[in-house]
Amino acid sequence: MDINCDFGESFGAYTLAHNEAILPYVTSVNIACGFHAGDPMVMQKTVQQALKHQVNIGAHPGYPDLQGFGRRAMTLSAQEIYALMMYQMGALQGFVQVAGGTLHHVKPHGALYNQSANDETMANAIIAAILDFNPKLILYCLSGSKMAKLAKAQGLAVYEEVFADRNYNADGSLVSRQQHNAMIEDEAYMLQHVERLIKHSQVQTITNEILTVNAQTICIHGDGAHALAFAKEVYQLQQR
Amino acid sequence: MDINCDFGESFGAYTLAHNEAILPYVTSVNIACGFHAGDPMVMQKTVQQALKHQVNIGAHPGYPDLQGFGRRAMTLSAQEIYALMMYQMGALQGFVQVAGGTLHHVKPHGALYNQSANDETMANAIIAAILDFNPKLILYCLSGSKMAKLAKAQGLAVYEEVFADRNYNADGSLVSRQQHNAMIEDEAYMLQHVERLIKHSQVQTITNEILTVNAQTICIHGDGAHALAFAKEVYQLQQR
Amino acid sequence: MDINCDFGESFGAYTLAHNEAILPYVTSVNIACGFHAGDPMVMQKTVQQALKHQVNIGAHPGYPDLQGFGRRAMTLSAQEIYALMMYQMGALQGFVQVAGGTLHHVKPHGALYNQSANDETMANAIIAAILDFNPKLILYCLSGSKMAKLAKAQGLAVYEEVFADRNYNADGSLVSRQQHNAMIEDEAYMLQHVERLIKHSQVQTITNEILTVNAQTICIHGDGAHALAFAKEVYQLQQR
Amino acid sequence: MDINCDFGESFGAYTLAHNEAILPYVTSVNIACGFHAGDPMVMQKTVQQALKHQVNIGAHPGYPDLQGFGRRAMTLSAQEIYALMMYQMGALQGFVQVAGGTLHHVKPHGALYNQSANDETMANAIIAAILDFNPKLILYCLSGSKMAKLAKAQGLAVYEEVFADRNYNADGSLVSRQQHNAMIEDEAYMLQHVERLIKHSQVQTITNEILTVNAQTICIHGDGAHALAFAKEVYQLQQR
Repeated sequence: MDINCDFGESFGAYTLAHNEAILPYVTSVNIACGFHAGDPMVMQKTVQQALKHQVNIGAHPGYPDLQGFGRRAMTLSAQEIYALMMYQMGALQGFVQVAGGTLHHVKPHGALYNQSANDETMANAIIAAILDFNPKLILYCLSGSKMAKLAKAQGLAVYEEVFADRNYNADGSLVSRQQHNAMIEDEAYMLQHVERLIKHSQVQTITNEILTVNAQTICIHGDGAHALAFAKEVYQLQQR
Repeated sequence: MDINCDFGESFGAYTLAHNEAILPYVTSVNIACGFHAGDPMVMQKTVQQALKHQVNIGAHPGYPDLQGFGRRAMTLSAQEIYALMMYQMGALQGFVQVAGGTLHHVKPHGALYNQSANDETMANAIIAAILDFNPKLILYCLSGSKMAKLAKAQGLAVYEEVFADRNYNADGSLVSRQQHNAMIEDEAYMLQHVERLIKHSQVQTITNEILTVNAQTICIHGDGAHALAFAKEVYQLQQR
Repeated sequence: MDINCDFGESFGAYTLAHNEAILPYVTSVNIACGFHAGDPMVMQKTVQQALKHQVNIGAHPGYPDLQGFGRRAMTLSAQEIYALMMYQMGALQGFVQVAGGTLHHVKPHGALYNQSANDETMANAIIAAILDFNPKLILYCLSGSKMAKLAKAQGLAVYEEVFADRNYNADGSLVSRQQHNAMIEDEAYMLQHVERLIKHSQVQTITNEILTVNAQTICIHGDGAHALAFAKEVYQLQQR
Repeated sequence: MDINCDFGESFGAYTLAHNEAILPYVTSVNIACGFHAGDPMVMQKTVQQALKHQVNIGAHPGYPDLQGFGRRAMTLSAQEIYALMMYQMGALQGFVQVAGGTLHHVKPHGALYNQSANDETMANAIIAAILDFNPKLILYCLSGSKMAKLAKAQGLAVYEEVFADRNYNADGSLVSRQQHNAMIEDEAYMLQHVERLIKHSQVQTITNEILTVNAQTICIHGDGAHALAFAKEVYQLQQR
């Protein structure tokens, strides 16, 4: 299973505690493209780090909302979404190509990711932008989402994604971040959750059912105090 | 002689009075890339208009200063300039490629254009970004500038640029916009000035010398009340 | 009845066609505060124009979304809304006070206006910000909205607002901008609509019912080709 | 001697390591106003922290350049500077007044501070904005600067400022940040430097002269690993 984490989310004088030390333990990174996070210098440096560690490079486009870190839902037209995807993919592509790399995937960020997962109009705008930009790119999107189905039907390669630190409802959807139990906080349980995902493609829901999920990639955090230790443990799980 | 004008400078609900009707009378357009002007939807639409009229498409990167329209001088490091050039060229390149076109040139905008013309560090940062991004692109820069020399010495194709509406000092430099006589206001004189440039590669300075300039492109305005009529007259000059 | 229009929506080099000539025909203006439109220089100048014409000055705070002109719905927390209201009211207040004026009212802009009209959490955040900032200010909000009720219950003065150019549903709500018939396009009908509002506090719905509305202010457009002529006609209606 | 530090420089998801724990050891804070740093929620919270610790609250306006943290020189007109000062002072004033506090001083930030220190036009724009906004405010500006003289001549109270961590040239000016020895890096020497400032109003220049400076406030850093320990030591110096 592919292990991805977000990267390159600093902006100007503001640094987020992403640690290059995590890169040996992931297979893919999603690089912010300057709208919700990242700036041109950060993008350039992040691409170089990713290439040095030979991880897959993905574009991580988001809403034009630096203050909200792209996590605040917005209502944009399909045309606006298509255009902001194209802009951000192009901007990152320049840095990747100049550094001698190849863009591997695209993962919408934050509220754009969540809102588009099951909104057909939004999903189609994102899919169209990627197909037009480079049909060989892989779309990272929510496992079991409408977007995953729509993308596949249009011939776009998809990695369905699960999360190391998110709880699941009985119907297989993610517990909303508005709920107190959206996140898995307990590290031991998180590791158990990840092991179940990697080895058995299963999740235990908050109502204790065991569901099978279709997933080709798992998202772990690149920041936070325990990110590195956790990434190592997940990496070791993968090796066994 | 190539005739260029700036294009795609609207932003969101704000429109600048660029007129698609001018496109038959110019040979090149410089498209704003979202920092000093332009947004992703404007860029997409502008690229399509340019292709429809078969004019050369250039990237027109500027400072990250929408409020100042990129006209306020800023002090950026060479690394910051390199990265903002790369970001903006990449962002536009995406739209151009998807629309089936090819990027033809790069023209820095406003204060970035002016400050870099004779600042070796800035000029080299811009030249390096273009060479790394796509060495086949043509740099549009101030006729007679240090930047023109530096670019040629590094193997980058250059169109030295003159302006339809700017007065010249005795030493061939542009009269500063801080001066009252920076701009040619009189339309009849402006046409005479352009004719002298196109037919004889000459300018008459504010002290009435006649200087020979090296120029492969002339910049006219795409906006303003008389832009279209003026463009037609320049076009007819060219045809004769 | 108070007649209000939005004002001061230019930004940097971008001008919206607001016409100082309209000011003799309105009684109140809503001045953009730099988030969805307006910049510090525009705000300063707009406040001076308003004072010169002795119209009531209102703050017109909006979402931090210049590209979307504050018209794109966003999902912000109550704390975020409270703080952005306070920031924008304070910023405008500085210019008003220095120019020797007094702030009269607050009217949320665009999507902030629409989303908060009937969302209790949002409405209360806005009301709390105004009460904390200056409890003598008048809140301009949608006629018949939950926000109007909540504000009055908390002791905040309210002008319930109707629109010169908007169609109404049978239940008294505005026809959504997503619908083709959201706007009244016909100028003759628009004038009739305004006359009915001013003289009889009534609207004719899209299903031809006549509803009585509670309104102390009517919003007309300050921009557009016919804004001035229309404002004059509304003004004359008022005088009779 | 007043001891000031910058505060409230976080933005959205981005936090700068300012530590409320430092507040007992300073007498004044300069709060970022949303242009180079800070956002409305950060401003609100920072004002509350400052009031809780009973430190003087100052506005810390800067250039509209979040990416450059307001440290990149810009060329703005006097009108633009006046207006951006007014906007930011007003925005902060709202939060201060609502929290029951009083604005005490204004300290321009970063490049705005440095460029205006000895530029008469810029200095006068800043002084005029403060005098118009609230003539009781104190201007914090570079010790010995032209701005200090101009402000006093116009009746504005001034605290001339020295820096805990900056080296001085033989003429009393700060060593430029472009130079390798701009900053005092050695903590023991920094403390000695501060002691000399506080007790004797003197600095030792990089060429080892001892100069007397006129200073009513000293700026220490609120962030960084050793900020708190250093602040305690400076505080103890003050007490003796």
